[in-house]
Amino acid sequence: MPALSERAIHLPASPIRKLVPYAEAAKQRGVHVYHLNIGQPDIETPPRYFEAIRKAEPKVLAYSHSAGIETLRRAIAAYYDRIGYPVTPGQVIVTTGASEALSFVFASCMNPDDEIIIPEPFYANYNSFSMFTNAKVVPLVTKIENDFALPPIEEFEKLITPRTKAILICNPGNPTGILYPQEALEKLREIILRHDLYLISDEVYREFAYDGLTHHSVLGLEGAENHVIVTDSISKRFSACGARIGCVVSRNAGVMDAVLRLAQARLAPPTMEQIGAEAVYGLPQTFFDSVAEEYVSRRDLLLERLSQMEGVRCPHVNGAFYAMVELPVEDSDHFCRWMLEDFAHQGATVMMAPGGGFYSDPEKGRRQVRVAYVLNKADLKKAMDCLEAGLKAYALAGFK
Amino acid sequence: MPALSERAIHLPASPIRKLVPYAEAAKQRGVHVYHLNIGQPDIETPPRYFEAIRKAEPKVLAYSHSAGIETLRRAIAAYYDRIGYPVTPGQVIVTTGASEALSFVFASCMNPDDEIIIPEPFYANYNSFSMFTNAKVVPLVTKIENDFALPPIEEFEKLITPRTKAILICNPGNPTGILYPQEALEKLREIILRHDLYLISDEVYREFAYDGLTHHSVLGLEGAENHVIVTDSISKRFSACGARIGCVVSRNAGVMDAVLRLAQARLAPPTMEQIGAEAVYGLPQTFFDSVAEEYVSRRDLLLERLSQMEGVRCPHVNGAFYAMVELPVEDSDHFCRWMLEDFAHQGATVMMAPGGGFYSDPEKGRRQVRVAYVLNKADLKKAMDCLEAGLKAYALAGFK
Repeated sequence: MPALSERAIHLPASPIRKLVPYAEAAKQRGVHVYHLNIGQPDIETPPRYFEAIRKAEPKVLAYSHSAGIETLRRAIAAYYDRIGYPVTPGQVIVTTGASEALSFVFASCMNPDDEIIIPEPFYANYNSFSMFTNAKVVPLVTKIENDFALPPIEEFEKLITPRTKAILICNPGNPTGILYPQEALEKLREIILRHDLYLISDEVYREFAYDGLTHHSVLGLEGAENHVIVTDSISKRFSACGARIGCVVSRNAGVMDAVLRLAQARLAPPTMEQIGAEAVYGLPQTFFDSVAEEYVSRRDLLLERLSQMEGVRCPHVNGAFYAMVELPVEDSDHFCRWMLEDFAHQGATVMMAPGGGFYSDPEKGRRQVRVAYVLNKADLKKAMDCLEAGLKAYALAGFK
Repeated sequence: MPALSERAIHLPASPIRKLVPYAEAAKQRGVHVYHLNIGQPDIETPPRYFEAIRKAEPKVLAYSHSAGIETLRRAIAAYYDRIGYPVTPGQVIVTTGASEALSFVFASCMNPDDEIIIPEPFYANYNSFSMFTNAKVVPLVTKIENDFALPPIEEFEKLITPRTKAILICNPGNPTGILYPQEALEKLREIILRHDLYLISDEVYREFAYDGLTHHSVLGLEGAENHVIVTDSISKRFSACGARIGCVVSRNAGVMDAVLRLAQARLAPPTMEQIGAEAVYGLPQTFFDSVAEEYVSRRDLLLERLSQMEGVRCPHVNGAFYAMVELPVEDSDHFCRWMLEDFAHQGATVMMAPGGGFYSDPEKGRRQVRVAYVLNKADLKKAMDCLEAGLKAYALAGFK
């Protein structure tokens, strides 16, 4: 049998995947599982998404333009204009989710073995996109005790080598739930200009900024226009994860041309889903406000409950809908599995993502879990009841 | 400004892309352009595709399983069973078009600089998928005067090196329109088993087999189960190019596991389009029969008209809906552009894909064009009128 490629052999399985069989077994035993393990919001997808699809009934479901349907590109550009970052439709290329956007950007900017610096903990799939395109992730440690803030410039510079091509941030952060202040972005501008690097910013959670804080896009960094690339998606913004509609936004014409040629190779993004996406991009700001309000109340509930649990540490999260939480356990892989396999509280348990998968060295996340607060408050409360009871039972069972 | 990657710099633009501005300019001058340049069929998408999407109105448009919606995987497996190649749903992974299927298979099987042998002329995007994953295409010349038949085994073996990992075929062929007979597949089996290679078969045109000939899938090659990987799509089969729903099919569990991990990194294929895809996979064989009948009559018209044009050579095509046609011109790039820029016949002209883009060395295709016979017969007839008049006018204008 022919050998698989090295990347196929070393490609990490999703940090959640290995727990799935245990969650399924729990359900088969009649245990309800609260899913705090995946960033799949429960917010209703705006009905206009489906209305637009219903109305558009083409005779022939044809390829769209490789860069996306022109009216969708214009709708996305108009959205960026509304939020204060004017771009032309030509500076937007529609992709099949932010995932494809990241793959295209990685392949456009990096040769095999080129390095990309990513503050960790980071979204586990960044590792996969790097492997797919043979780039190398260089993690920059950020710490829970500092609310995962970016370290001083010197810490970045220690990692920069002749092979460094880019810095990638996720803002607000998955899995940290941290919104970067403008000063952090200005620090990044200084680094990328000094070392001639790309700054790739995954801003799919842009509207999920709480406590009166404003999200700042890297698109606003003056003087860095040729360095800045944004990857984006309708998945979280419009609760349309299944649409797989994202985009690359950049004012660097060379990058956009390379991305377009990659986009041409895969022909086009899905047509019907683009039609739905165009409709939701027309939603007013008030849509986001009501969604954010709901998430703030969930976040408040989460933080309050976690603060009451002994030995649990959670930074003050102010963006996205995740928190990296430190638990009083020595091995969150074991604890998360135990919660599914050996524990139930009032007929239910909770599934979380073990923290190790969000670090290049899983040891660093061994005592952490990522919690996605994507359930309504009633369910989230019950999920917290399960976690609280589970931590006690775990200790009583003699586990550390 | 940071440099682009080498692959971004060398990634070929689509062979059609450079002509698009000329086609647009022709339309603006009021000239009708017959599009024989792209494999976008005009056959109506089965209405049940849209009916299924209309009926399925989820509250939340959620991620599907990374390997695709379970019922779709079962529908695809059932289809393979019906056509005589039994596979389990676990041997099917749904992808975002055959394009993604090919990218995943390339990344799973090949390390950077590993080599893949592809009979040429070949689908231009194979080059792009190779570059994206840093594999290296090694072309195997097939000739128009032999109807693009596969050469003897010795010709393959001349190209095999320690870095050769796979052979890729497209059957029936894009751009050649050639259906490989069973003997050709058996020849390939001998080679891949002797040299321990993967055999990747792009079979998106499977149902487009004419003249009473049967399409044979590599899935039927006994003893080669662990070597054989099929990439497939609903784009042509169900005239649903815009859906971007394809799949990888293989009985090699290691390959499927690697493909699944790549699939997890991009989360999922588009949900609504998968719902439509599931509905069309339920169509009976008679659907394909009527489509094939239509294409046969178009093919017959095309071959008849081409045979009447002086200096034009077209092999007897018996599959897909393409033909690589040799024209009495020295530079088909120039001719195709001239047809758009400087020519009209009764207010119309024809757009074709210059042949060079389908060869690793464009010189080899310099006198050829790819014709996609995806227009109804009335339009195809007018397109042939344009080509015939165009060739005469081109010669009269002093071009060769």
